[in-house]
Amino acid sequence: MRIGVFDSGVGGLTVLGALIKQLPSADYVYLGDTARLPYGSKSQATIARYAVSSARFLVEEGAEFLVIACNTASALALDAIKDAVRVPVLGVIETGANAAQASSKSGDVLVIATDATVTSHAYKASCAERGLRVFEKACPLLVPLVEEGWIEHPVTLDVLRIYLSELMEQSREASLMPDTLVLGCTHYPLLRSQIERTVPELRVIDSAEVTAAQVAIALGDRVRVDGDGVRKFYATDSVEKFKRLGTRFLGEAIECVGLVDLGG
Amino acid sequence: MRIGVFDSGVGGLTVLGALIKQLPSADYVYLGDTARLPYGSKSQATIARYAVSSARFLVEEGAEFLVIACNTASALALDAIKDAVRVPVLGVIETGANAAQASSKSGDVLVIATDATVTSHAYKASCAERGLRVFEKACPLLVPLVEEGWIEHPVTLDVLRIYLSELMEQSREASLMPDTLVLGCTHYPLLRSQIERTVPELRVIDSAEVTAAQVAIALGDRVRVDGDGVRKFYATDSVEKFKRLGTRFLGEAIECVGLVDLGG
Repeated sequence: MRIGVFDSGVGGLTVLGALIKQLPSADYVYLGDTARLPYGSKSQATIARYAVSSARFLVEEGAEFLVIACNTASALALDAIKDAVRVPVLGVIETGANAAQASSKSGDVLVIATDATVTSHAYKASCAERGLRVFEKACPLLVPLVEEGWIEHPVTLDVLRIYLSELMEQSREASLMPDTLVLGCTHYPLLRSQIERTVPELRVIDSAEVTAAQVAIALGDRVRVDGDGVRKFYATDSVEKFKRLGTRFLGEAIECVGLVDLGG
Repeated sequence: MRIGVFDSGVGGLTVLGALIKQLPSADYVYLGDTARLPYGSKSQATIARYAVSSARFLVEEGAEFLVIACNTASALALDAIKDAVRVPVLGVIETGANAAQASSKSGDVLVIATDATVTSHAYKASCAERGLRVFEKACPLLVPLVEEGWIEHPVTLDVLRIYLSELMEQSREASLMPDTLVLGCTHYPLLRSQIERTVPELRVIDSAEVTAAQVAIALGDRVRVDGDGVRKFYATDSVEKFKRLGTRFLGEAIECVGLVDLGG
């Protein structure tokens, strides 16, 4: 079984890392569409075009199951991808919403994400379908702080305190009683323990971890259980930067990255 | 006289704002290539292609003088732009280097910029041509802090203290005696006074201001001096975001932004 994992950048490697923990013997092919990121500032038609060409590339590379580890593409291009390829497709927003539904007793859920994901209200819609009330907040400084490597850094802890106290305050004003916080960006799992310390009253849903768990359930015993699978990495630009940043997100060294041209 | 100002995003509006102060009666046409930003992570060939199509658009819109208010394009595409259009072209890196040369008595200059600009070493090369020694430092958190609007914010002041004390320490280790600091990113003029307070021993070169001054000298009396000129704004994506963010960078309201499609 070969699983394709797609993101606009390196963030989706947190999802791949969680998948490797859950299903170490599967083969993986990862594509970071780094030449065309960020998707968040682009129109839905453009995002769908980029995501579909990326998904097709992964299927051509032998992927039999696709994980869309990109919140923007999951929000705005999931149906287009499902129409374009003949393999099962799972997006991080639906897996996050599933996990929020399983976690929340009060039915009130908070989501932190990038500006683009919050503006799309994709988590809100997906959670509302599951009967949850949702309050979303954009936290645009967290991605650059993670990319700077300032994980256990006083500035990052300050920024988390500011964002999360604003979020708690705003959700109280909206009369919500939240018990669950969804990390709606693939960069945020690197800050998970810092976030858990900042808001110990909330159960934190790590979208990488819950996506991996749901892929394992979906695939059942279709994945052989012996040994480690093959892992291939592709990026559409800046292979060196992908290796350097990516290693931090994956949690293990990335030796070889192929450069692929998917057009403009 | 119509002056064209080009950037990959809204940052170049700090240059336009400085130009309007210096030459209020000129006409201006500004293009933010927001659909294809950030340029920094892309290859030189791609950046040159994007910058040339943007420059041609501005000339078709009547620009008789082009200001490349984008550090990445100035570093990697200035010659390609000069080859492609028949109007004079000035880039922010050469204007910053000119100002550093005029300012520095020790001949040792510091530059802060984005990761992409530092990696290109364009300031280093341009300053070296003028006999200056340069130490460059990437400050990747400053752009997102400015875009978050955290200008006079304790977190931003902390981040500036960290970056600038590292920079001073590293330049001392390299045996430099710097007296001048170039703000090598069009977002940084918004933090100018905070930076000046953090390193009062350095003269700060605001690339927006010095570019405007050098454009005024280059144009001499070709700009009529009566009244306010016409100002036109174009973006390649997300016109609403351009207006909202742009107003902060320009220092005055942006009422109307045209959407233009320059291709992929």
